[in-house]
Amino acid sequence: MTAPKLDGRVERGDQTRRAILDRAAAIASVEGLEGVSIGRLATELEVSKSGVFAHFGSKEELQLATVRWAREVFIAAVITPAHRSPAGLRRLWRLCDAWLDYSTRRVFPGGCFFASVTAEFDARPGRVRDAIAAAHREWQRYLEESIATARELGELSADADPRQLAFELDAFTRATQDALLFDEQGVYTRARRAILHRLRAVATDPAVLPKSPR
Amino acid sequence: MTAPKLDGRVERGDQTRRAILDRAAAIASVEGLEGVSIGRLATELEVSKSGVFAHFGSKEELQLATVRWAREVFIAAVITPAHRSPAGLRRLWRLCDAWLDYSTRRVFPGGCFFASVTAEFDARPGRVRDAIAAAHREWQRYLEESIATARELGELSADADPRQLAFELDAFTRATQDALLFDEQGVYTRARRAILHRLRAVATDPAVLPKSPR
Repeated sequence: MTAPKLDGRVERGDQTRRAILDRAAAIASVEGLEGVSIGRLATELEVSKSGVFAHFGSKEELQLATVRWAREVFIAAVITPAHRSPAGLRRLWRLCDAWLDYSTRRVFPGGCFFASVTAEFDARPGRVRDAIAAAHREWQRYLEESIATARELGELSADADPRQLAFELDAFTRATQDALLFDEQGVYTRARRAILHRLRAVATDPAVLPKSPR
Repeated sequence: MTAPKLDGRVERGDQTRRAILDRAAAIASVEGLEGVSIGRLATELEVSKSGVFAHFGSKEELQLATVRWAREVFIAAVITPAHRSPAGLRRLWRLCDAWLDYSTRRVFPGGCFFASVTAEFDARPGRVRDAIAAAHREWQRYLEESIATARELGELSADADPRQLAFELDAFTRATQDALLFDEQGVYTRARRAILHRLRAVATDPAVLPKSPR
């Protein structure tokens, strides 16, 4: 009858692991992944260094696990809510809108986790850079597929190019990183206006979209 | 007759200072400004630490001088070439085009200096963040003024909003930071296509603009 005790230990281990990754992602969004170290996490979370080390083994493994964790947080904050809207143009708009909400609400204290760590690692080859690039590419592909679906449903003009349009929508959302630099929220309104304007230009029925940004 | 000797010393000092800042900006574009330290620059440039220290006094002063240096490099690479085109829509397009050239040519080895350090400092209050924000805002204002001029010259539709349009053009140029992450150049074509499409939609005479991106 040792199973319950073992389960308890596994559960506590999982909780510790989650607490470490949550803190690591928060730090990385403000200071970058280089600011994330086993020693610092141990101090801030008041656990032993060997405890943190047992979960991740190395700084690089910790950084990779942090990228995976941030990806899950992003999916829960952006992809899942958008799925409440029907597939097509409505969901495409909700995806962009949920992204802007995720940035406004500071799901990560330093703004978008991926915007922070992309600039940090884009010129530094290695496994961490590859993991960041893969997560970023996954988001862009998801946008492209959502555009393609809206077009197949006849809600977007047949000549709308999914890759080009995804580039533009992604550019508008990411440019809101300025809100952090200038402590101003107007940039979110400008991003919503830009996205709605762009989508309206290719929508077969623009009435599906909100009239104006919130 | 000591003046020539003194001049020679001043000139050598200026050369050293320029060499330090050039190296500091290159490092910062790849690794961020936190990667820039007096000790590292002394080692890489084979000068004494006290020599580097004499020029800047502290790491923060060195970081601030690096931001000012990068601003000058940006002006020489982007603003000056655009001034060869006449004021108005032609110059506005050339500004965006020169920005994309500056990024493609890797004027800074890590892509746009400001894109790298903005993500690093946007959530860290202080003098360095303020200097980065001021440089960034200056570029956006310059774009806004160029749009306003093109409108006053009757080359852009009267209802084109300079601040909104500047946000969108800036977003398209900055999104090319992906070229570093994915080692692909297609993103520059997508950015030029997006900018030309946007400008054509508000141009009173779209024939002023190139037909298609290079």
